[in-house]
This record gives sequence, C-alpha cells and structure tokens, in this order.
Amino acid sequence: MSTMTQRIVLASRPQGQVQPGNFRLESAELPALKEGEVLVRNHFLSLDPYMRGRMDDTKSYAAPQALDEVMIGGTVGEVLESRSDALKTGDKVVGMLGWQTHGVCAAAALRKVSDAHVPLSAYLGAVGMPGVTAWFGLNKIIAPKAGETVVVSAAAGAVGAVVGQLAKAAGARVIGVAGGAVKCGIVKDEFGFDACLDYRSADFRAEFKAATAQGIDGYFDNVGGMVLDACLARMNAFGRIAVCGLISGYNGESLAVQNFRSILVNRLTVRGFIVSEHPELWPQALGELGGMVASGALKRRESIAQGLAAAPQAFIGLLKGENIGKQLVRLVD
Amino acid sequence: MSTMTQRIVLASRPQGQVQPGNFRLESAELPALKEGEVLVRNHFLSLDPYMRGRMDDTKSYAAPQALDEVMIGGTVGEVLESRSDALKTGDKVVGMLGWQTHGVCAAAALRKVSDAHVPLSAYLGAVGMPGVTAWFGLNKIIAPKAGETVVVSAAAGAVGAVVGQLAKAAGARVIGVAGGAVKCGIVKDEFGFDACLDYRSADFRAEFKAATAQGIDGYFDNVGGMVLDACLARMNAFGRIAVCGLISGYNGESLAVQNFRSILVNRLTVRGFIVSEHPELWPQALGELGGMVASGALKRRESIAQGLAAAPQAFIGLLKGENIGKQLVRLVD
Repeated sequence: MSTMTQRIVLASRPQGQVQPGNFRLESAELPALKEGEVLVRNHFLSLDPYMRGRMDDTKSYAAPQALDEVMIGGTVGEVLESRSDALKTGDKVVGMLGWQTHGVCAAAALRKVSDAHVPLSAYLGAVGMPGVTAWFGLNKIIAPKAGETVVVSAAAGAVGAVVGQLAKAAGARVIGVAGGAVKCGIVKDEFGFDACLDYRSADFRAEFKAATAQGIDGYFDNVGGMVLDACLARMNAFGRIAVCGLISGYNGESLAVQNFRSILVNRLTVRGFIVSEHPELWPQALGELGGMVASGALKRRESIAQGLAAAPQAFIGLLKGENIGKQLVRLVD
Repeated sequence: MSTMTQRIVLASRPQGQVQPGNFRLESAELPALKEGEVLVRNHFLSLDPYMRGRMDDTKSYAAPQALDEVMIGGTVGEVLESRSDALKTGDKVVGMLGWQTHGVCAAAALRKVSDAHVPLSAYLGAVGMPGVTAWFGLNKIIAPKAGETVVVSAAAGAVGAVVGQLAKAAGARVIGVAGGAVKCGIVKDEFGFDACLDYRSADFRAEFKAATAQGIDGYFDNVGGMVLDACLARMNAFGRIAVCGLISGYNGESLAVQNFRSILVNRLTVRGFIVSEHPELWPQALGELGGMVASGALKRRESIAQGLAAAPQAFIGLLKGENIGKQLVRLVD
C-alpha cells in the first residue's frame, strides 16, 4: 500500500523576482520503503534565502534545483514507518525532505531530536542550520573580543538574531541593521542588541555613522550591497567580515562594492562560508545553541505560514523581508 | 661643521595624477649627530607605489606625508660618521632616510647589511620590503599547494616578480598579468612564470579565461580594478586573495568591484595586509630571500634612474608602469 504526498515542485525558473507561478502544487506517490529507509510525516518546513539561489541555473556552490522536482528544504517531522533499526515509529527527526507533507529517505540521512526541552520548530532555526550558520560565522570568522563592535545585517532574521545574541554573550557591542521600525524594535527589545538601525531610513548613513562611532570590528553580512559598503567605510584595523549571504542581489540587482579599498587600508579579512561544509563543528554548535534555547538565554521569533499551499507566498515574503525571525511552514493542523 | 643634504620635499598634494610640480628639490643643513646617531650617505633610494597613497591627505593605514618635509622612502647607503657603538664608518645600512642624498638618524633605526653576496640595491627590492611583502602574502595568505594555480598582477614589478618565483618554487602553476609585450616576455622568460598576459590586450578577458582553465586558487593583487574582477570570476572553491595594493585606483579612479559575489559562492578568503606590521617574520623572510638571491635562484630586474633630481619623473613613471622590476634612484656616481 503506497503513501501519497502533497508536494511543491519548481515549475519554472524566476526572471528577476520569484512569482507564485514558478511553483506547482501536486500529489505524488511515494516509493515503498527499502531496507534502512523510513517514512516521515513533516511537521514543519524551513524556508531559507539560500533557496532563491538554487532556483537559478547559474554556477554556484550547489547544483541548481531541478525543474519539476520537489523544492529542496529542511524539515522536521515524525517517523510513521521504519525499516531501520536506527529509528522507530514516533521518533522526531530533522532532515532535508523538501517542500512536501511526507517523505521517504534513508534513516542515516535524518537526525533524531528530542522535543522535551526544545520545541520541534527550533531545530529548523536557532538549533538548526541557521543557528549553526550564525555560530560558525561569529565564532570562526569574526571571533569578537569583549568590547569590540559587531554589526549584523538582516538582524531580525533567523541567522542575524542568533549572531547578535551570541556576540552580546561574548561581550561585544552589537549593532543590528534591519528593515523597518517594527523589526528594529524587536531586535533591540527582545534580542537585546545595543542598537538597531533601519536601512530604509532616509538618514541611514548618518545614523549608522553615529551608531558606529568607535568603528566596526566584525560584520556579519547577510545582504551585501549598500549595507556592506556602509560597513566597509567604518571598519577598524584588522576587522573581520563574514560573508554569509547577499540577499540584496538575489533578484539580479548589482552587487558592486564601492569601498573594496577598505580591505587593504584596514587590513581586513573577508571570508565567505557555507556552513554545511563544516560538519565537524555541528555537534558543538548544536549543543551550545540547544542549551541556550532550553534555558531561555537565546530568544527566538518565528513567522509561521499554515499549510503546504502557503509555502510559495511565504517564501516570496521572506525574500522581501516580510518575516520576523525564522520563516516556517506548518504542515500539521 | 654641519653637513648639507640635497633633498626632495612634497610641495603640494596631487590632484589626480602626480605632477613634477608636486615636488621641490632643495638643499638643507643636517643636524649635528647626537649620541647614538649616525650620518649616512645614501647610495640608492627606493621608489614604491605606497608613496602615492601617502601623498594624499586621506585616512589610510599611515599618516599622510607632511608638506614641505622630505619625501618618505627606503634607502641603502654607507655610514660616513658614527656616534653609536652599533655602527662604524663604512658600514652599509638599510633605512628609511627618504628622498635625500644624506641623512642623520638613530643607529637603532638602521639595519646593517653585507654586499658580499647580495648587491646593495637588492636590499631595497627582493631582499627588502618588496621581497618580504611578496613572501608574506604568498606564504601567509595564499599558501599555495603544489599543482594549484596562482595569479599575480603587476607581475613584472618588484613585488610581483618575487611572488611568482616563490610560487613556482612551491610547485604552483603561475600566471602573471602585466602591461605590454616586453614585460610579459620578461615575466615568462626571465622570471619563469608559466604564462603572462597583457591586460592592455583587446582580448585580455578571453586570453585570461583560457590561461586559467583550471580556475584560480590564489591571487596576489597589486592592482585592484579590472584584473581583480577577472580573477574573482575565475576563482576556485576555497581560493585565497592577498590584497597588497590597488594601484589602479591610486589616482582616484573607481575601485568598484563587480564580482564580490564570488567571495560567497566560492567561499573565498580575502585579506589585506601591510608587511611592516609583521616584523616578527622579517628575519625568516629576509634570510630565505637573501639566500635565493645569492644563489641565483631568485631573478631580479631593476630600473635605475640616475641622480636625486630624476626621482620625481621616475616615480611618475613607476605609477604609469614604465619600470620593469624594482624602480630605484642611484644617488652616487
């Protein structure tokens, strides 16, 4: 007896901004379980900016998302059926089952998690890929010392919120950059950043200069473009820039950088990274992040869309910065 | 009895390109020697691109060159008179006495050298600051593995020529970029690079793409601008870029970088550096470079202008790329 899944596939590649018509919702029959495989019902689907890059057919660090195949994506769910000794029915698992309600995959490709102290959805955010991304870029590239100034763009997002809180815990002064007063308020009041500036403000440059009067020692870049240039202009000697995302160019906008000269003048280190390439650090990072979420030391926000059919619009909203905190799709009632 | 020096001072700051009128040749009386000081007759003056940056009154890693003061610069010469136990008359010394025929300074600010196996002028080039610059950027930032591809811009210059030869010695494939067929020929035939491309060629982009068919693992950047963008477009995963100079922007030209996205996509490390900030590495670097020059393993070229009065025009020529190898001014007959 086969299981049906509802899934969303990539119907066409975007020309500039992503449109709902780039996706197609369909039913599909899942294959029968082979030895070592499990059937999972997904509870939450993770939406992340990197997915935008996969939708293009250009050279990048990962192969493009194939047309007519289920959209790639992180998921957390529950094992319904198992042909593996490693997992049993009812186990909660994190994996990459994509934009679908159910999925079949090898038990070895799933990570068993506990929802006793950490909510399941957090495994897609602060205690998952976005959290480890923040942890890696902050600790392994920026490595802030107490008293240094760290700037984080997309500060209200799933990654940025963690970066800032980890930097505060390390004793740094933390300045966020986000879009709009609501996000900036949350970044300051809930996430505890020292300040948060609205990049849409007409006075952004002047406000940014004032907020970084002591210069910038570390910049965690999620956006590129204008905010990157503003940071380059304010970097202190031997500053570090972790290049995590360039969301301001995801729709083909120019990412030309005007202030590259600052890299020489201020002897900066600028490093791009992809967190999946550092699997040896995940256990330590997830352990620390899980402990901080369980204890309440690490604050989280989630934007949750309900039902698989809502995923395309939620993803389009994510790319426009409409979410606050981690953007998820709930696939159970 | 006081000693006179002929010297060149900065008369005015350049507006765009440096002009002869930005300098003034004058006579000046040197102060009497204080305890611990020596009087030096300079044999060679070093001309280097960094001096262009000092001529501007903008924020940089070093204070601007003061108006009406002797131009900053590295020198090698001979002690004429000493009030220090560390140096005696006739000793050969490297220092920073600037654009002048004679100078007085503390013996502690000079480095005694031997011209037994290494010509004096080499202490301003391959066995001096340019050589250590090449050594540091190549070994401490690019760190090439055998079989990797390293690109060097300004490949016929004092720094670039050393970078390429050190990279070849490390087993890398080395592609130079230089201006004009004459320089490219010298880079290939004398310095032993695997290839050298003329950035002025109408087909530069296509030629560069063909020469870097296996991608680029390390780029030693002396110029910024168009060549930097060409390299960014060809970098392999985990490539390293050492940012040593941005000579293409020294006259105020835009240094906007189009292909910044490559830093993320290819997980690059880009690092600016100033070799004077790493004094702990100079003894090792100078020892290795001196040995290679003495043995003939490291090939050198010099462009030598005769007489202090020729320094401004030689410097202007350096900024236009008219020199081949290390640009010097000989101050003795």
